Amino acid sequence: MRRINELVKTISPADLKILQDAQDKLDNLTKPRGSLGKLEVLAGRICAITANLNPRLEHKVIFTVVADHGVTEEGVSAYPKEVTAQMIYNFLRGGAAINVLAEHIGARVVVVDLGAATDIKPAKGLIIKKINYGTRNMSKAAAMTKEEAAKSVTAGIEIFEKEPVDIAGIGEMGIGNTTAASAITACMTKSKVALVTGAGAGLDEQGVEHKIEVIEKSLAINNPDRSDAMDVLAKVGGFEIGGMAGIILAAASQKKPIVIDGFISASAALVACGLNPNARDYMIASHCSVEPGHRAILDYLGLDPLLDLGLRLGEGTGSALGINLAEAAIRILNQMATFKSAQVSERVTY
Amino acid sequence: MRRINELVKTISPADLKILQDAQDKLDNLTKPRGSLGKLEVLAGRICAITANLNPRLEHKVIFTVVADHGVTEEGVSAYPKEVTAQMIYNFLRGGAAINVLAEHIGARVVVVDLGAATDIKPAKGLIIKKINYGTRNMSKAAAMTKEEAAKSVTAGIEIFEKEPVDIAGIGEMGIGNTTAASAITACMTKSKVALVTGAGAGLDEQGVEHKIEVIEKSLAINNPDRSDAMDVLAKVGGFEIGGMAGIILAAASQKKPIVIDGFISASAALVACGLNPNARDYMIASHCSVEPGHRAILDYLGLDPLLDLGLRLGEGTGSALGINLAEAAIRILNQMATFKSAQVSERVTY
Repeated sequence: MRRINELVKTISPADLKILQDAQDKLDNLTKPRGSLGKLEVLAGRICAITANLNPRLEHKVIFTVVADHGVTEEGVSAYPKEVTAQMIYNFLRGGAAINVLAEHIGARVVVVDLGAATDIKPAKGLIIKKINYGTRNMSKAAAMTKEEAAKSVTAGIEIFEKEPVDIAGIGEMGIGNTTAASAITACMTKSKVALVTGAGAGLDEQGVEHKIEVIEKSLAINNPDRSDAMDVLAKVGGFEIGGMAGIILAAASQKKPIVIDGFISASAALVACGLNPNARDYMIASHCSVEPGHRAILDYLGLDPLLDLGLRLGEGTGSALGINLAEAAIRILNQMATFKSAQVSERVTY
Repeated sequence: MRRINELVKTISPADLKILQDAQDKLDNLTKPRGSLGKLEVLAGRICAITANLNPRLEHKVIFTVVADHGVTEEGVSAYPKEVTAQMIYNFLRGGAAINVLAEHIGARVVVVDLGAATDIKPAKGLIIKKINYGTRNMSKAAAMTKEEAAKSVTAGIEIFEKEPVDIAGIGEMGIGNTTAASAITACMTKSKVALVTGAGAGLDEQGVEHKIEVIEKSLAINNPDRSDAMDVLAKVGGFEIGGMAGIILAAASQKKPIVIDGFISASAALVACGLNPNARDYMIASHCSVEPGHRAILDYLGLDPLLDLGLRLGEGTGSALGINLAEAAIRILNQMATFKSAQVSERVTY
């Protein structure tokens, strides 16, 4: 925990003073003021995050963090647990949705195994920092020990710090992990489990009801302390969620924009903000998924998502689209002509 | 009109039978079914549009069509009329928002002068097919003659037919053109003028009220026949709106996806659908802008916009972002691994 506590202390609020200068810069460009809407807001936020009026977003990285969940024993997912490891190999061969979308936006994918239930063969593009072979079944006991929880967050911090990054996106894969995300969300946002639990990768109505019962039981047995994010992570979280929280914290500490993907990524954002609420300033919410808990987290953290495309895949797919919009916004900020340079008349009425 | 009538007859509905095959193809890819939401719907639509399960979107073109509007005499815009010509030169030098976003997505911008109020110097990337030096003041008489209206649509058809295009976006520039778009929208969707008129490039509340009065007067004086799209275009339209309608019709005739930008582009979509409702099948609505008339058109045509970013710039900026999402969707369709090829287990529950 010492490594985490030290890093968490270094996260200061983003430089909000720069927002006015960023808007002035945007207002001098050859377009009606504010006419690029959320792209302008996004450009301003990236200036505030990086404390730079001319930010560069050259190195784009998506961290796809993978782990298994003991709670799958309870039949909470539409897919078998083996899919977690199979998908790691799919990521490494470039066949998954995140590979395709990362290529589309010119980003690199870093795949991280923090806890697949089987040993994964070392490969290029894969970082193995296995905490354990999946978490324990949280409906029977804590998903992990306090030490494992700290290890997962520390792993995320260390992984981020080794990559050259201008903007990063998080993403995940792990059969059963919407169950953990719903448990974290219910606890930390004080929401009813039923209101923040959805179909995950494709449960039917009966499956969702069973999932709700399993989550309620897990919360009752473990009684996580919502004021202690590490306690919540340990009792009802997942290794990939801890890892993503670490990545967020490291990005915030380095004043780098960190793009949040779907519901499970957002649950990692909750954990990160539980450790230091300033981390929120560095987050860009790429989209709002169809998982009901995602909206609850975005509202709780006060994040306005860029996209609403009905995504519910994870892996960092929404992050990829969000990074692409961030790059569009920064190109606008840095590359457009000004009214003066282009000799275009300014508005006559106000 | 003969050229237009001949082309309009060739527009048949998109190949909806292919939608099931496209969904089957998507469902075999290594992701939960439907988990990419609107991206999957978009991929399916592009298959239906192109009648191809493996469509290619290599040649991406944005047509930015420019013209002036006589109605600016009435003080309906926050910007002086000179800006129209100034912006053409800005487009040609690459300093405008559309240039930056087109570069971001790897598209080519084709700038078209159909009616700037001054002569524009010929340049690379500029097509000059000037119908007239701006329309007439529609609050006093018809904006254009029937011949001019036909010429503007024909110009759009001819321009599209000369470009190698796999997917195209439309966009426009023309001080005063939200006034024309609101008039077209009020007439063709049978909406109250006040409900489909907004601030354009930045009018204040009083300015919007005046704009509403000018549009009401224009509709009263000209009495356009909403069942005759060419009549509406001639009486209260604009040359760039006619040109964009022509581009849409030509794209639909060639079974190419055509991406619609903001409110003014959408008013051209109304005109195109007035000439042949099948044209709608080929349209992709990139976004919903803050202009209230835009939502009215999307609802009227039954188009579901991809983005809601508060854009209100035009030029094809929203089209650029929409083309980028279309490309992402088609990469997913064409490049992802299948469950079989990646040896990933399929779902266990249904």
